[in-house]
Parts: sequence; C-alpha cells; structure tokens
Amino acid sequence: MAQLKPVEVFDYVVFGATGDLTMRKLLPALYQRFKEGQIPDEARIIGTARSKLSTEEYRERGRKALENFVKAEELDAKLAEKFLGLVHYASLNGAEADSTWSNLTDLLDTAPEDRIRVFYLATAPNLYGAICENLSNRKLATDASRVVLEKPIGEDIASANEINDGVGRFFPENHIFRIDHYIGKENVQAILALRFANPIFERVWNADTIDYVQITAAETVGVEGRAPYYDTSGAMRDMIQNHLLQVLTLVAMEPPSSLDADLLRNEKLKVLAALKPIAVEDVAKVSVRGQYVAGELGGKPVPGYLEELGSESSTETFVALKAEIQNLRWAGVPFYLRTGKRLNRKASEVVIQFKAAPWSIFSTEPRANRLVIRIQPDEGVSIAISTKDPAQADSLTLRNTSIDASFAKQFDTRYPDSYERLLLDAVRGDPVLFIRRDEVDASWKYVTPLMEAWSKNEAPLETYTAGSWGPKAATDLLAADGHSWHEDMA
Amino acid sequence: MAQLKPVEVFDYVVFGATGDLTMRKLLPALYQRFKEGQIPDEARIIGTARSKLSTEEYRERGRKALENFVKAEELDAKLAEKFLGLVHYASLNGAEADSTWSNLTDLLDTAPEDRIRVFYLATAPNLYGAICENLSNRKLATDASRVVLEKPIGEDIASANEINDGVGRFFPENHIFRIDHYIGKENVQAILALRFANPIFERVWNADTIDYVQITAAETVGVEGRAPYYDTSGAMRDMIQNHLLQVLTLVAMEPPSSLDADLLRNEKLKVLAALKPIAVEDVAKVSVRGQYVAGELGGKPVPGYLEELGSESSTETFVALKAEIQNLRWAGVPFYLRTGKRLNRKASEVVIQFKAAPWSIFSTEPRANRLVIRIQPDEGVSIAISTKDPAQADSLTLRNTSIDASFAKQFDTRYPDSYERLLLDAVRGDPVLFIRRDEVDASWKYVTPLMEAWSKNEAPLETYTAGSWGPKAATDLLAADGHSWHEDMA
Repeated sequence: MAQLKPVEVFDYVVFGATGDLTMRKLLPALYQRFKEGQIPDEARIIGTARSKLSTEEYRERGRKALENFVKAEELDAKLAEKFLGLVHYASLNGAEADSTWSNLTDLLDTAPEDRIRVFYLATAPNLYGAICENLSNRKLATDASRVVLEKPIGEDIASANEINDGVGRFFPENHIFRIDHYIGKENVQAILALRFANPIFERVWNADTIDYVQITAAETVGVEGRAPYYDTSGAMRDMIQNHLLQVLTLVAMEPPSSLDADLLRNEKLKVLAALKPIAVEDVAKVSVRGQYVAGELGGKPVPGYLEELGSESSTETFVALKAEIQNLRWAGVPFYLRTGKRLNRKASEVVIQFKAAPWSIFSTEPRANRLVIRIQPDEGVSIAISTKDPAQADSLTLRNTSIDASFAKQFDTRYPDSYERLLLDAVRGDPVLFIRRDEVDASWKYVTPLMEAWSKNEAPLETYTAGSWGPKAATDLLAADGHSWHEDMA
Repeated sequence: MAQLKPVEVFDYVVFGATGDLTMRKLLPALYQRFKEGQIPDEARIIGTARSKLSTEEYRERGRKALENFVKAEELDAKLAEKFLGLVHYASLNGAEADSTWSNLTDLLDTAPEDRIRVFYLATAPNLYGAICENLSNRKLATDASRVVLEKPIGEDIASANEINDGVGRFFPENHIFRIDHYIGKENVQAILALRFANPIFERVWNADTIDYVQITAAETVGVEGRAPYYDTSGAMRDMIQNHLLQVLTLVAMEPPSSLDADLLRNEKLKVLAALKPIAVEDVAKVSVRGQYVAGELGGKPVPGYLEELGSESSTETFVALKAEIQNLRWAGVPFYLRTGKRLNRKASEVVIQFKAAPWSIFSTEPRANRLVIRIQPDEGVSIAISTKDPAQADSLTLRNTSIDASFAKQFDTRYPDSYERLLLDAVRGDPVLFIRRDEVDASWKYVTPLMEAWSKNEAPLETYTAGSWGPKAATDLLAADGHSWHEDMA
C-alpha cells in the first residue's frame, strides 16, 4: 500500500543522545522507518553526549528505549537488532571547542564527503550556537548537511534571535530545520488535505460562513518530574507560541500553489503577520492564564502544580487566548486557542463553528453546523448537522445529529508518530513542515506583549481544579462573545 | 420525545377499501398514528367498496391486514382492537349514482355537519370524477371535506386533465390532495432539512460547485401478480413522472420563505417549468428505456418480464433519463434520473456529485466530493472526502474516505411510513406535501414527448438481465458526459 519515498544514505548525528527525547521519540521513530524499509542499511545514527559510553553500551540504552517506547506488537526483535547495528556513539560535549571531537570526526570521516549529514540538536537551546560553531570549525558542516533545532527556540524575541543568529552564522536558512512535532501529526497535516482537496470545505472556509474557530490542545498529565524545566517555560511558551499558532496558520492560510516549502511557509507567515497585535490594556480581555490546584482525574486525586513544583510560582499551566486575523478572509472571526495541563480529557482538535442559517422555515431553529477535526486521539472528523426528525412524523421538525468518520478506525493502518516524517524530511532536505525563522519571529512578536503584561501582573493568574476544563474565566472569555467551548469531545 | 400535532375528530372515507393499498398501507398507517395517540377516539374510518360485507366482516379483514403489514413488535393486540372499533364499512359503488349511498350517508349523518371528512379515492383513477360527482350530488362534499387522489393521475396530459377536471368540478383545488407517497418519506423530506437548515450544504448547492446530480429508485422486485396493470403503465408513468420528478424538485428548488403549501409548491413548479423540453430527435440521446430478461437475484433465478406477463410487450421496466434545468442555479448540471425493477439492489438515493478541486497541491489527485442522501433503506447521508493518508508517512498523499451517518441507526426511533404523515395532513387540511394540479400538468408536459417518441419506436427498447444495474445504454448515457452511476451504494 504505502509507496514510500526512498531516502539516500545518511549519517544522523544526535546531540543530546542520552536524553529523554532521543530515547522516547527519535530512536523509536527511526526504528519504525527502518522497519518500513525506508532507511538504507548503510545509514548511521550517531549519538553524541557527554557520558562516557561505548557504542555497545549506547546500543543497550537504545534497545531499552525501543522496548519501552515502541508498542510490543510493532517491535520485531530481529529487526531491532539490525537497526541497532546502525547506531553508533561518540562521547563528546558538542558545545565545547576542545572536547573529544575526534570521536565524532573519526566516524564521519569513514563516509564519503558528500554523504547527507543531519545534525539533530536535542540539547539545551542556549548551546545550539556553540555546537554549530564547533561543527563549522571542525569542517563537519558540509554542503550536504542540515541542522535540526528542537524547541524551545528561545523564551522571547531577544533570546530567539540570539539562538537563530548563532545557528545562522554557520548554516544557511534553507539548511536549518526548526522542528515543531505538532505539524508532523497526521491530522494536523490533514487540515491541508481537508481544506484544499475538498471544495465543499474550501468554499465555506471564510468569514461569510464561519462564526468562530477553536483550537484546543488539552492534556491530562501534570508536570510531574518536568516541573523545574516547565516552570521556566509555561503553557504560552510550551504550546501556544509554537504548536497552536502553527495549527492556526494551517487553518487560516490562503491556498499555496504547491507544497514547495517556501511557498507554503510564505502563506503561514502571512497569517502570523496578520494577527491583530494585543495591546497591554486588552490583555485581560483577550487572554486567560491559569494554574491547576489539586483535584481529581480518572477517579484519582492528583496534586496541584505548586505541590508538584515544591515552591511558589506564577507560571501558567493553562492559556486561553482570543486571536484575530486582520485580513479579508477572516476579519471578525475569533480564533480561540486553548491549552492546559491536568484538564478533563486528553484531546487536541480544531473546531470550525459555522454560522447558523439566517432564516428558518422549520418548526425548530436549526443548530449551526460545526466541523471538528480531531488531531488526537481518535484521528478523524465530525460534522454537526440538522436533519428531519423521524420521531416527529407530522411536521418538518429538525433533529441535531452528526456525521462522523474515525480515520483511525477506518484506515487499516498504523498512525505514524509525527517524528517519523519529520526526521526523514530533514534527510531529504525538505523543510516544508519545518518552521522558517521569520515564522518564529512573527510568533514571538505576537505573544511577547502578552507575556510581558503577565509578568507585570496586568492580568490575574486564575486557578483551576485539576480534572476540570480550566478556569471559569476561560468560559467567560467566550461567553462575552456569545460563544462557548466545544467540550463534548467524546 | 415526539411532540405530535393533535388532529381534530374526522371521518375518513376510503373508496376502494377492500383493495391492496388500503390493506397494506392505509389501515396500518392509521393504526400507527392511533397507537401514537394522535387519532381521537371519536374519529371514524369508513371503508366503502362494492363487496357486500358487514362492518364486523370488514374489521376482520382489517385485523388480518394489521397482522400482516404491521411489524409484530409494533402490534399491540388490545390497541388494535380499540383501533378497529373506529373502523366501519359501507357497501357501495361510489362511481354509481344510484348505488346504496344510504349505507354511507346514514353513517356520516350521525356526525356533526362540520366534522372533517376525508374522501380517499383508492379506486381506478377513471372513476374519480364520477365518485366526486356523486359525493357532490349527495351533499357529502361539505366545506370541511377534502378529497385525496391516489396515483396514477392519468397516463398522459389528456387523461390527467380529464381526471383533474372531473374532480375539480366538485372540489376546489385547495381541497384536493394528490398523494405522492415518495414525498412523505422521511429522508425525502430530509432533503429540505439538509439543504435549508445547513448552510455548509446550501452554500455549495449550485452549478458553481456541483457537477451533476443522480436520483435513483432501484427495486429488486419484478412485476409478478401486478403484471397486467403494470403493463399499461411502465416505469416512466409509475416512477419517473411522479416520484422521481418530485424528488428532483426538492433537490433543485429555490428556498421558499416558509413551509406554506403554496409557497413551497410554487418553488417546485418553477423547477418543473424550467426543465429543458426534450425534442423528438434528442430522445435517444437523453433517455434509455429497458425491459428485464430472466436473470438471478439474491442467488436465485428469476424470470424475465415477458415470462411474468405471459405475452409480448414493449412496456419499459427501466428508465434512465438526463434532465436539465434551465435556470441560473442549475444550467449545465445534468440531473440523471434512474429507476427500474429487478435491479441489483433495493436502493433509493440522491447523489450530489461535486466538482473536483480545480487545482491540486498534493502528490495524488483529489477525488471529487460526493454527498449521498439515502432515502431507503438505511436512511442517512454520506459524504465522500479526501484526507491525508497516514499510510504514506512521508508525503501529503490523499486518501479517499467517507463520512457517514446512518440516521436509521443513530436515532432511537421508528421510521414512520410515508402514509402516516400524509393521511393526517389531509385531515389537517395541509397540502404542503401533496401535488398541486399545475405540478401534475408540468410533469406530464415534460415526459409526454418522450413517451410519444417511444410509442413510435424513435428510441430502442433495451433489455437488461434481472439482477444487473440495467441496460448498458444507461451506463453509456452518463459515459458520454464523462460521468458514471453511483453503484457502490452499500
């Protein structure tokens, strides 16, 4: 069934190779692509980190990672061993010029000079510049090299610029792959397919027909062990500035003429540039920040954020935001973004709320149509419609129902993790699903005034009970417009 | 759940009360409404026919009819007896002036003069005029009386005029209820709900977005015992001229401002009046007529039409027709109508075939969207869409799928037979779902040239094997336009 694009032989060099991301996501994703037959046998995956490990010891960690993070039924022990044979390790501190670089260069030197190299930076972002400088000085950044940058790219405009400048000194922009794994999710990409391959949707995709849009990324997990890191970030930096604004660009952009990376990203940038700037005096009117307190989830008591953190903090674990896009297609259509930890249910989705029919000939008022694109779980779509109620045999009375498709169930196929596509796109040199620098800049430009206002306490930090749908103020935010959150997501 | 409109006390007088329609449809439908509590206890159902039967004997026939034609789980013996208590019988030949009219008048005279009377004519249509004349002469046609006319209203323009003139001399048009049970079907009425209560559909409901429309009424049954009657009619008169053209009006009409009977029927009439007349020289280009020969259905051999009839005949049991509507909304959009007996599967449906996206940014061509409204069986809708194929992890490849809703399964309710609504609408005096005379005229005007051409053999009579989807010529009819029938209806 699957007609996969082959990739050329590559060396994938991961900085931060002993870290959580590598073990949870990168190695399992590369294993899956290997299993699909898409990775050439001569390809190599070279982990680097400061730990003094042999390749054998590192492979043992990789073996455990596969056991833990690949579903048992998808893990083929023999294939896994073959895959681990592609894995190598070079002990090295990439941020230090005089580290044991020979561990890496000796390995890379055994390959032809024109072999594709991907440097995947999964370290602390403030090291990205230094690593790139060392790669350059050691002549490792060849013409066939790309560098992949994990988020967060900074914590505000200034620090993002610093990181982007640091990397940009040694890699041209079209060799820099800023990853946002949300864009790699199958049903985020499906937004493009649903919009641009289905005229019945594209024809109504504008302010004439659409009342408002909601983009939700709700998590049930708390911060737990990640609390010290998370507390320096918060929901705005962790989710809104990157993932949710990216989803918003896909929902709102004008149709590109092709999937050429720059043509597509030009359209995304136009959306970000058209976001109505948030004035300080409007912050409390268009945004809600919240922090969870102890509550209950799945019938079990769960602690509050401050208990998990073990100290005082004003970091937000929930954000609701009303964004507006100032262009011909979207003027007057609010885009409500919402994300939070310890919410009622794990659900990422886009809700397109259409306007109700302006006139009814029926004995009941029609409900407005609503298209829900479920990103996860249960990837699919549903459309709320009104039809004739057969229970009302003697009148043309309407009945609300929905037309639903669970792609996850209909398609007899595994849903690949978003990293699988993205990791190989970097090998292919196709940045279409990666974030261009101007997008990062525009996103930070949009959210920075908001975060500044929060840091000055221009808007209150609300609390919400773990297991709820967030602070009451988030409900009020929409109620002020006569709207409401789509919470019956089951 | 159901909020039913009560009806006033009525006397329902059925002419042709011993016939198949009364037993199969009318009595079961009235029983169902009685069971729903919608029929007042003082109401009466008075059967009339030539047979010399007592009321008790007629009730016994009614009892059998309920046993045979109401689903066992819906038949409540006690309620059925109570219902049969409302049933009376008057032996009478309604078409004869000097028949035993006292049998009927004695019964009717016991009720107040302003009681609602419905005269339901289920006899041979050429008797309608005589019956109405007798009703008038006997002073039975009161101000509170309506007359319901069963199809067929004639077999061409001339005979339809004769019938309509005959009835119209004694009943004003707004007291004449020409029944077309197709319009009473829940998911035919749903066409109005889907179009006018759902802006996502109404916005794309025109020639800009729609490529073509198909309306199919496929039956698996043959003519069997009805052969002698059917042979005088044929598929054009039996199905196309009434049912399918009516469905076409609902699909194509402009939105009325209310469900007022005349406002709605004005819009339906406009559609019929806008049908492009079929010139004799075009008959073979836009229509296909066929007759089934012996074949197989459900794994069993079935005879051909001529074997069932027992004589030679050129009566068509299949029609495919390309209709065109000459107005701003529909110019250039073919409406393909198709009906036949002994076809592959029992299925009535409307297919709205949209145009494909005019430009694709994907590695595969998008399939055009298609909305299928299933009238029966499995009342519901499905929409064919394209989405991102998760099996193609490394590209934005499209996958065809469909979003489906089976209303019949979703709604925990019985689907009422179309007669239930229609019979009581006649009591209420609401003709919104009945056919106005000008509609009948316009339908006959449209199909008459076609039937004349056939009778002169200006177009061939095709044959098709029982159990197939009809003659090959029907496939060719659409293929000539680059289109194809929607046959994967399962």
